[in-house]
Amino acid sequence: MPGEFELIRRFFERPGVAGRAALGIGDDCALIGAGDEGALAVSTDMLVAGRHFFDDVDPEALGHKALAVNLSDLAAMGARPLSFTLALALPNADEPWLAGLARGLFALADAHGCELVGGDTTRGPLNLCITVLGSVPPAQALRRDRARDGDDLWVSGALGAAAWALQRRLETGAWPVGTEPALDHARARLERPEPRVALGLALRGLAHAAIDLSDGLAGDLGHLLERSSAAAGVALGAVIETAALPIDPVLGALPQARCLELALAGGDDYELLFTAPAGARGAVLAAGARIGLTLSRIGRIEPAPGVRLSGPDGRPIPFHARAFDHFL
Amino acid sequence: MPGEFELIRRFFERPGVAGRAALGIGDDCALIGAGDEGALAVSTDMLVAGRHFFDDVDPEALGHKALAVNLSDLAAMGARPLSFTLALALPNADEPWLAGLARGLFALADAHGCELVGGDTTRGPLNLCITVLGSVPPAQALRRDRARDGDDLWVSGALGAAAWALQRRLETGAWPVGTEPALDHARARLERPEPRVALGLALRGLAHAAIDLSDGLAGDLGHLLERSSAAAGVALGAVIETAALPIDPVLGALPQARCLELALAGGDDYELLFTAPAGARGAVLAAGARIGLTLSRIGRIEPAPGVRLSGPDGRPIPFHARAFDHFL
Repeated sequence: MPGEFELIRRFFERPGVAGRAALGIGDDCALIGAGDEGALAVSTDMLVAGRHFFDDVDPEALGHKALAVNLSDLAAMGARPLSFTLALALPNADEPWLAGLARGLFALADAHGCELVGGDTTRGPLNLCITVLGSVPPAQALRRDRARDGDDLWVSGALGAAAWALQRRLETGAWPVGTEPALDHARARLERPEPRVALGLALRGLAHAAIDLSDGLAGDLGHLLERSSAAAGVALGAVIETAALPIDPVLGALPQARCLELALAGGDDYELLFTAPAGARGAVLAAGARIGLTLSRIGRIEPAPGVRLSGPDGRPIPFHARAFDHFL
Repeated sequence: MPGEFELIRRFFERPGVAGRAALGIGDDCALIGAGDEGALAVSTDMLVAGRHFFDDVDPEALGHKALAVNLSDLAAMGARPLSFTLALALPNADEPWLAGLARGLFALADAHGCELVGGDTTRGPLNLCITVLGSVPPAQALRRDRARDGDDLWVSGALGAAAWALQRRLETGAWPVGTEPALDHARARLERPEPRVALGLALRGLAHAAIDLSDGLAGDLGHLLERSSAAAGVALGAVIETAALPIDPVLGALPQARCLELALAGGDDYELLFTAPAGARGAVLAAGARIGLTLSRIGRIEPAPGVRLSGPDGRPIPFHARAFDHFL
């Protein structure tokens, strides 16, 4: 069966049709128009019960996450959030549940000055679809397709905790009743990701290319390389120095190979992966310091296709990861 | 259990919070910004299998309708279509089905110069969520809340056929195998509504208020009156002259009361209901003639709340209709 990206390519991309949009399907956001106030960045994400969240999820956390994954797309574009629409299919009108959802949604929306301007409510299997709008000067947009040979590869925050929490939950079938500090932290990373909007804004004019980490670093990096290779007309790849990967400290007790797998193929991190010229190292670190977010230089872009791992001794490490795909 | 509009009001409208949008929740579209190129009109509609369409629907018709109901919201705002996003939850990756969906979607999109700029695909119970963007000069937007006492009440096209087809299908459980001209016409009205985009554009600067007919004329008129009353600070109502209602000719064999019920409470017509000053009658009729669409003057706005029906002899006709509500 074809995968999600293959489906989109086959049925919904139309390379022969010239569009008006400055940037269409295939990036974190589409870019529309280009007036003085900047292009409009648009992105849509749909969350389905049993696939993107557990049926017993705290509705407040769900409201947070539904908007957060959309704001993360704006962040990966360097766009400033403006407004959003919410479409909701609900199996029933459970009022305390809806009140919780609205609380989580509006707390995050208000923190980012992002206004709910419209939507739709219908009865049906639980489904949340948010479309978010943001603004960005077109020349400063952090597109996926602008990585260049020799760029440093950077990632924000720490990786792997969300995927670890998800796997723990899938193995045990329920969250533990008492507190368990490492898992509680990891679960918060899974359920309440913080979209890196401030970082996206700080990277305008500094980063060459960016993508947010939703499907796992290796796979998302693959998307960035594929688009950048096509745009540059040369095959670009990347080497990742495993010792530089910011593995979340709560994974400290796990074997090294397991940590690598969670960080590279785990998904749900919602950190930003970006490239920048070597000359911008100081400015990138200063941007991170200014917004209080650790930025790690984890490798570089090379003129050979593929993603390679390099161990602490500089020798290659074999690794076969693939991005999460809803249809594989 | 609270209804759809009550749910939205209770959990998602925030009267105390000042928004940046020129027009937020409660109209056919939100209006954002107001640059030289006009405000951006935004609307979202979600279609759920078994609720908005039958499981055996022709995917090409579904692709058409999913976009049509969104374009209808732009039409009701007087907005010109620009672009849209599509989020899809699919139970499986059925390729012929997806190819049909894409065909119906793009045929209508191309007819209106509306570009697919992004989206999301996931596995889940069948659900289509489209967000559409359009442009309109803010002062010419056809808002719901601008009806005035003494305005003529107009409706485009013919009413009731879609609702009749839907009821026939619900009664018989399947579409007939052979052709049945009246039902075939009515089914096309149900499955392939034509969004009245050209009419919306022609009514800029001419109509006072407008709404598209999705839930039934009586209920949708109620929304228009409610918003206009609140905006004007006076209770506005309407009288409808039943003899002037453009009942679809395919309903000719049905009893008069049944035709009235279908036209007033049936829903799914996707015609435009609008108000305009009496002095604009000639201009409105000329606009209809120019775009080849019949426009019927069906009544007027009055300074007394409620919707009243007036028979051919001028005497009131009792009628109790309510709009379709997904949660009642």
